[in-house]
Amino acid sequence: MNLKEEALKLHRDNTGKISVISKVAVKNAEDLSLAYTPGVAEPCKEIAKNSDRVYEYTAKGNLVAVVTDGTAVLGLGDIGPLAALPVMEGKAVLFKAFAGVDAFPICLNTKDIDRIVETIKLLEPTFGGINLEDIAAPACFEIEERLKEEMSIPVFHDDQHGTAIVTTAGLINALKVVNKKLDQIKVFINGAGAAAIAIAKLLLHLKVGDIVMADSRGVIYEGRKEGMNPYKEQIARATNRGRVKGKLVDGIRGADVFIGVSRANVLTAEMIRSMAQAPVIFAMANPVPEILPDEAKAAGAAVIGTGRSDYPNQINNVLAFPGVFRGALDVRAVDITEEMKLAAAYAIADLIPDNELSPNYIIPDPFDKRVAAEVAASVARVAMETGVARAKRDPDEIRRRTVELAKI
Amino acid sequence: MNLKEEALKLHRDNTGKISVISKVAVKNAEDLSLAYTPGVAEPCKEIAKNSDRVYEYTAKGNLVAVVTDGTAVLGLGDIGPLAALPVMEGKAVLFKAFAGVDAFPICLNTKDIDRIVETIKLLEPTFGGINLEDIAAPACFEIEERLKEEMSIPVFHDDQHGTAIVTTAGLINALKVVNKKLDQIKVFINGAGAAAIAIAKLLLHLKVGDIVMADSRGVIYEGRKEGMNPYKEQIARATNRGRVKGKLVDGIRGADVFIGVSRANVLTAEMIRSMAQAPVIFAMANPVPEILPDEAKAAGAAVIGTGRSDYPNQINNVLAFPGVFRGALDVRAVDITEEMKLAAAYAIADLIPDNELSPNYIIPDPFDKRVAAEVAASVARVAMETGVARAKRDPDEIRRRTVELAKI
Repeated sequence: MNLKEEALKLHRDNTGKISVISKVAVKNAEDLSLAYTPGVAEPCKEIAKNSDRVYEYTAKGNLVAVVTDGTAVLGLGDIGPLAALPVMEGKAVLFKAFAGVDAFPICLNTKDIDRIVETIKLLEPTFGGINLEDIAAPACFEIEERLKEEMSIPVFHDDQHGTAIVTTAGLINALKVVNKKLDQIKVFINGAGAAAIAIAKLLLHLKVGDIVMADSRGVIYEGRKEGMNPYKEQIARATNRGRVKGKLVDGIRGADVFIGVSRANVLTAEMIRSMAQAPVIFAMANPVPEILPDEAKAAGAAVIGTGRSDYPNQINNVLAFPGVFRGALDVRAVDITEEMKLAAAYAIADLIPDNELSPNYIIPDPFDKRVAAEVAASVARVAMETGVARAKRDPDEIRRRTVELAKI
Repeated sequence: MNLKEEALKLHRDNTGKISVISKVAVKNAEDLSLAYTPGVAEPCKEIAKNSDRVYEYTAKGNLVAVVTDGTAVLGLGDIGPLAALPVMEGKAVLFKAFAGVDAFPICLNTKDIDRIVETIKLLEPTFGGINLEDIAAPACFEIEERLKEEMSIPVFHDDQHGTAIVTTAGLINALKVVNKKLDQIKVFINGAGAAAIAIAKLLLHLKVGDIVMADSRGVIYEGRKEGMNPYKEQIARATNRGRVKGKLVDGIRGADVFIGVSRANVLTAEMIRSMAQAPVIFAMANPVPEILPDEAKAAGAAVIGTGRSDYPNQINNVLAFPGVFRGALDVRAVDITEEMKLAAAYAIADLIPDNELSPNYIIPDPFDKRVAAEVAASVARVAMETGVARAKRDPDEIRRRTVELAKI
């Protein structure tokens, strides 16, 4: 069987990938009287008296909603909420397998921003966190911003921040390999969607030397008129200090790093040769990258990462989101902040000691069991240190428990 | 430990009662490529081409949302959606244990009817059915009516219809014990909330002789001015043919059956003595019934049912809802109709052969494994016969599979 047939068979044989199970037995009248009426009234009354107790008596504290409107599913685009369901179930599977998080797909039958925001807010009592998924830009930015402001549980758009965290982790280590400093490099980002803008923001938070971004119309600069939106305008003001204009070929010239979150085959050997010495190439378009690794290497790329598992240095979100939510849930963080994202990026990067770093090993394997545990512990620690946590937990205990919970 | 302490301990020790699990392993890159990218794109594309395939490739077809706004939780009243969560998790536990249905709590942070309707509609892509729970009357009627009209998956308010089905099942058998016919009896229902009105409607569908209902203000009749709502008015037009007015004591006089879904201790021995010969008393207020069974018996009650497990003839919703949804989901019913509810009632009643019926045994035990299976098979059969089903399944196979799925 080929991949297509195997994937269809897996989904068909199991009728989907998730199930809701009971953690308690109901074998007789006594069980029933404890799990349901009349006994269940007791935890209800406790929560009615003190709402914080919901984390003690219910599954809320470990439950993440994986929410989509189906407008930007994988590379398939706007296939709708029903067709998005296998991806959302898949995400739930990964949350559970990598970090023991109970995640549940919520596919919303609307593309209207106000309705999406309203609906997710109304769902808050059930969940401990919200993972937004495969929502098209620029709607995803407004949705996330409004939810972060109006909800008291953490909200995280994985296509943005998961990608930004793992890309940043890869970049931190790639720069060690080529012996360059963050504050001295110029990064060229091809793409201006959810992932691209989140990467730019996280790198700005890290104070990289300069960033130049380009979308399908070309380089983004302050004052550009066509194809802009408030999010591109905001990023334009903070990037491209040299006021470069033009196309990809103009933006990439002299750059130390290429980060592609765009389309297949848009990067040429010639463009790489126009970059600074020892260029770092993250060609993350899926399934076909911006340039194939062999070609990039032949053109002089010093370090190459892709989104694929069949090449070295896979920039895979699964390195980030399970541990990020594990840590955030464990300390009941009210938000997932830039500091927590950076903590996650450094936790991933620091798993590889300097003496093991090489052009082909800048990022841990997705199945490295230490990753989610290390990310969870770091995210939780920073949440506690920065006043975002509502509960205190020992990061070492979180690390140990995450390893135990993982089923990879 | 007493019940309170045991119930709190059970909830605390398990941190709630439900968990979301993965039905597929994710142990290596190949697993990941099938359950997630790139393989997951295949079922997505199949569903995008043909939306019916969502039932083949995802968990939707077995997933029921247990939705509440927390306004009428158990006997606790309007304790809010957060404090309602233990009950909704409990319901999910019962769905799973009794009929293998994956159910998930959705506690909505609003009491606004329009918002509740809108939100539930937007959640449709994820779920195969909607179980409304603990929503106060009369809002629950409008919410359910609108959802039934506007959604293409079955919607079922258990407080109404679960109670109506099991009460009707009990009544069918109680009448055999006292040797009376449905079309010749007068039923007095004390209460005019969600359960009371649903019971009245189902009994009207069964063409009982007459029904008289009373709320806290007294008997309901056509033209009454105080304390009415559109639902009481509708029921007033179809009941109380003798135009009785007055209080409970006036409405119950001469009745063959008392159905109490009201408050503790409102029924007296004297009232029972004013009923027709061999009266049937269903005193279902919880935890304290309208009259204690011993007292009712002493006053001449021929058959007595309560909501409690420590007396004979427990009228317990768990006899209905797991099998009703099992059957509806298995044939992809677009609705749960009065015919399907009656099929469920007769399936429950008919489990007790006439020669085993007695005043102390008119309704099966909640832990009788045959119940959900029989209900599921009957509901599915009637759904197929009446054109409500979108899939064809053998009722015998549904019966067998339900027994296998049950964990009681």
